[in-house]
Amino acid sequence: MQARDGAYDVIVLGSGIAGSILGAILARNGAKVMLVDSGVHPRFAVGESTIPHTLNTFRILAERYGVPELELFCSFEDAMQQIAPTMGRKLHFGFMMHEEGKEPDPEHTTQLGTTIPNLHTSHLFRQDTDAYLFHTAVKYGCVAQQGYRVDNVELNDSEVTVVGQDGSRHSARYLVDASGFRSPVAQQLGLRAGPDALKHHARSLFTHMIDVRPTDECLNMPESARPPLPWVKGTVHHVFERGWFWIIPFNNDPASINPLVSVGLTFDERRYPKRDDLTPEQEFAHHVSRFPVLERIFENAKTVRPWVSTGRFQYTSTKTVGNRWCMMSHAAGFIDPLYSRGLSNTGQVIDAVAWRLLEALKDDDFSEERFSYVERLQQAQITYNDDLVNCSFISWSDWDLWNAVYRVWASSQMPASMRLARAVERFRATRDEGVFKELEDEAFTGSLFPNKAYDELFLEMVRLCDAVDHGELASGDAGAQLMRLVRSSPAVLPMQGLDDPQSRFVAKTQDSFLTLARWLAEEGPEDMRYLVDTPRIKAALNSRR
Amino acid sequence: MQARDGAYDVIVLGSGIAGSILGAILARNGAKVMLVDSGVHPRFAVGESTIPHTLNTFRILAERYGVPELELFCSFEDAMQQIAPTMGRKLHFGFMMHEEGKEPDPEHTTQLGTTIPNLHTSHLFRQDTDAYLFHTAVKYGCVAQQGYRVDNVELNDSEVTVVGQDGSRHSARYLVDASGFRSPVAQQLGLRAGPDALKHHARSLFTHMIDVRPTDECLNMPESARPPLPWVKGTVHHVFERGWFWIIPFNNDPASINPLVSVGLTFDERRYPKRDDLTPEQEFAHHVSRFPVLERIFENAKTVRPWVSTGRFQYTSTKTVGNRWCMMSHAAGFIDPLYSRGLSNTGQVIDAVAWRLLEALKDDDFSEERFSYVERLQQAQITYNDDLVNCSFISWSDWDLWNAVYRVWASSQMPASMRLARAVERFRATRDEGVFKELEDEAFTGSLFPNKAYDELFLEMVRLCDAVDHGELASGDAGAQLMRLVRSSPAVLPMQGLDDPQSRFVAKTQDSFLTLARWLAEEGPEDMRYLVDTPRIKAALNSRR
Repeated sequence: MQARDGAYDVIVLGSGIAGSILGAILARNGAKVMLVDSGVHPRFAVGESTIPHTLNTFRILAERYGVPELELFCSFEDAMQQIAPTMGRKLHFGFMMHEEGKEPDPEHTTQLGTTIPNLHTSHLFRQDTDAYLFHTAVKYGCVAQQGYRVDNVELNDSEVTVVGQDGSRHSARYLVDASGFRSPVAQQLGLRAGPDALKHHARSLFTHMIDVRPTDECLNMPESARPPLPWVKGTVHHVFERGWFWIIPFNNDPASINPLVSVGLTFDERRYPKRDDLTPEQEFAHHVSRFPVLERIFENAKTVRPWVSTGRFQYTSTKTVGNRWCMMSHAAGFIDPLYSRGLSNTGQVIDAVAWRLLEALKDDDFSEERFSYVERLQQAQITYNDDLVNCSFISWSDWDLWNAVYRVWASSQMPASMRLARAVERFRATRDEGVFKELEDEAFTGSLFPNKAYDELFLEMVRLCDAVDHGELASGDAGAQLMRLVRSSPAVLPMQGLDDPQSRFVAKTQDSFLTLARWLAEEGPEDMRYLVDTPRIKAALNSRR
Repeated sequence: MQARDGAYDVIVLGSGIAGSILGAILARNGAKVMLVDSGVHPRFAVGESTIPHTLNTFRILAERYGVPELELFCSFEDAMQQIAPTMGRKLHFGFMMHEEGKEPDPEHTTQLGTTIPNLHTSHLFRQDTDAYLFHTAVKYGCVAQQGYRVDNVELNDSEVTVVGQDGSRHSARYLVDASGFRSPVAQQLGLRAGPDALKHHARSLFTHMIDVRPTDECLNMPESARPPLPWVKGTVHHVFERGWFWIIPFNNDPASINPLVSVGLTFDERRYPKRDDLTPEQEFAHHVSRFPVLERIFENAKTVRPWVSTGRFQYTSTKTVGNRWCMMSHAAGFIDPLYSRGLSNTGQVIDAVAWRLLEALKDDDFSEERFSYVERLQQAQITYNDDLVNCSFISWSDWDLWNAVYRVWASSQMPASMRLARAVERFRATRDEGVFKELEDEAFTGSLFPNKAYDELFLEMVRLCDAVDHGELASGDAGAQLMRLVRSSPAVLPMQGLDDPQSRFVAKTQDSFLTLARWLAEEGPEDMRYLVDTPRIKAALNSRR
């Protein structure tokens, strides 16, 4: 049987998605890894929504480090067949704006989606995906130490040691803390920065339910007001003043055997003080009852697990890397599940840590400097997320402002994803890791899409929304100003309707993509033309001439 | 949203297989049920092996109470497609006898199996089956209260009340405790009987592993010594003096996406005192190292979850039903996972409780007397199991004795299963619940197969093994005596080789079944001929003339 003793190269704390993927990558590439977790699999987790950018991040990890198991996440069909037939199919990212006591205005809905099947992502049923990744890590040789409670960590110049509450000691050359809010490293080194450093302020209520009615069935809207893709076929965000509900069905594809739907509410506790007289379920029901469509959606819904009721859940860290250690992903910080940034950011951080750590193991040099980009990346991701979510919360009081903020977010999605897809394509052709290192070499670390014009647009959005928040600007004026910027920004690609405030639904097709690609290649901004400079897109354009 | 308040008809403690199935049945038939559990789904559980008798028990519940979800368990294909593609396929129940330090003698192996696909059962991946059943209960209307810790229960003449550690109170007309060893009812009423009342004495070590080698690949045996069905295609019991290993693969069918194998060791701590100097994994590895084949099987095996190391785990109860309450299944008692009796017994108890409780709800009469059969049934199941397992442990020191004990167990399997299948067939034709009530109306409550000759054989086995255990009889003599009884007992049906000590492998085919059925109809013991008195078997026999 596998030995459990001896010296490890790396101890990874946390066997969730981040820890298991990093563990698999390291073990697959020769490192001796111990994967420690206080809990066990299978287990409930939220963070179920993916975006094309997430998939391309996983694809990069699969290619770069030789872990094909990660590629399965990139195809709904592969995930369903080889991970578990418990996923939802996601054709779009949809938003519906609500006002208390009213039916939603059909004009106040947006959808960013696609009919291209290989861009369909999954609603990840995390108990299954996480166990799959954990098993993958074990198969590649990670030694699992589950149900293990860490008492403290000893970080010194020559090694790191994890001491269990059972008194056992395990040493390694490097420690990755991929746990979460209760990160042992953050607690021990006093690195947790309170939420005061952050703008966004929200708490959350969430669970999994059964018999949640599809949004489409619950709308009193004329057929003509309906989007091209059914609401139930994607991740739906029901937004309202300083809050939003998520509805993420796992049961929206005939191939899924899963009857559950992930539901949650994230809202500003300053606007909606916590009701200590209500159970979490009652508090959720109370907010549901404020919005007629939501009342109908949850009419017959039944919870299958205890409600989670959090306090304010934003946190960050004063520092995320040190000599012989780093804190990764949710051990470093968290803002909000809005826009499904979590898994994308996690994938990017794993990549940034993995190659550096593999090189550090070779060189036997684990100094903090080698990982300084990881620090910059994580801090920047947190700042960007904080700004993005904060702007969104501010904007949900005024359709015109939200309509513009939405477009700033949405316009980053396709180019950001194309940028990663292009790197994968180049790597497949050249096996040159430089293409991935280039992705890091940029002035806009942490940005949704690293581009000068996009960055300017984003920062203007932040400035305008902050001004609204501080009462220095009317939201309508901010919305009008921001929409003008959206319409004139070269970073907002045309032909998707994102530059037209009246056009609210994007359902990309292969055809519309190629039309846009041709425009981009021939007339697009100089600093974005590289996105279509790939043999695959060129060939597709040529064959279409 | 679903209300959580108001009066319940029944509160069920425990949302494992027993509680969830009973909850589903009651809710499906109109009862207001609250399903309470201190934990949540998904979760690890052992008890993965099923036998045809188990499936027929589930089939009875499906038919009798209108819960088709239970029928899925009866087909490997249905379970894989509709519950989860994580099951193992089970073609046989196999035993291999080991002596310390030696390769096993090919002559000391037995297998009871079938090539008839619709008799293939599943290795249940309990995290998935249990969540499926729990969700089924919720869909039928059970109100789930998960992650709920019971502080105490108040049982009085007019109602029962469950009081949570959070101070909440939930009342109902009846309480079913389907929890487990730590049953709140057993603790509160002081009903737990220590293991001293029981003969069997064992503790256990178990987990789930990855990269467990198939037994077949690890045998140094000539091809000719191999059984007709590969070892890996079933539940394998590696038995040795006063102990046994189980190996239950979930990865033995091409359709399964599950890489795990359930492994465990159950052994007598009087013979093998607990090693406090070793971790559970080390202790398991120590016992593995005593047997060369097992060493090869576990050579590359890696655990994916913490080992469970139990103390002596036998327990029973002085009483299992009372006014307005009953304890069910593992809340009532437990002996040993050997022979996969657990799920079969659980199914039988659910049936015995369900119709009584549905009638009691109608009559508003929940007196203890109405449930007295449930008490008799559970106590008898425990006694029978205790004797059966104890005899087996005694016999594993001597092939001749084990060979005879094995046959006593094995000979009950087909008739017991046929008896239930016949009841289902009759019910489907008549919709007369009397056919199921008849199954209860017998002199041999708790027996593996209720039949006078079988009962005599079983009791002789117990007498002989007890004599060996008490040093009053040599094991070889006991084996010879018992084998003579096996060979002459009318309850041991011919043509399976069970009456021939040299014939060790049964791989039933449709043909061999019909040959046996014809013999049974025409020449079999009077009191067993009813087994083939069904339109389906008669038609099959006629079409074969």
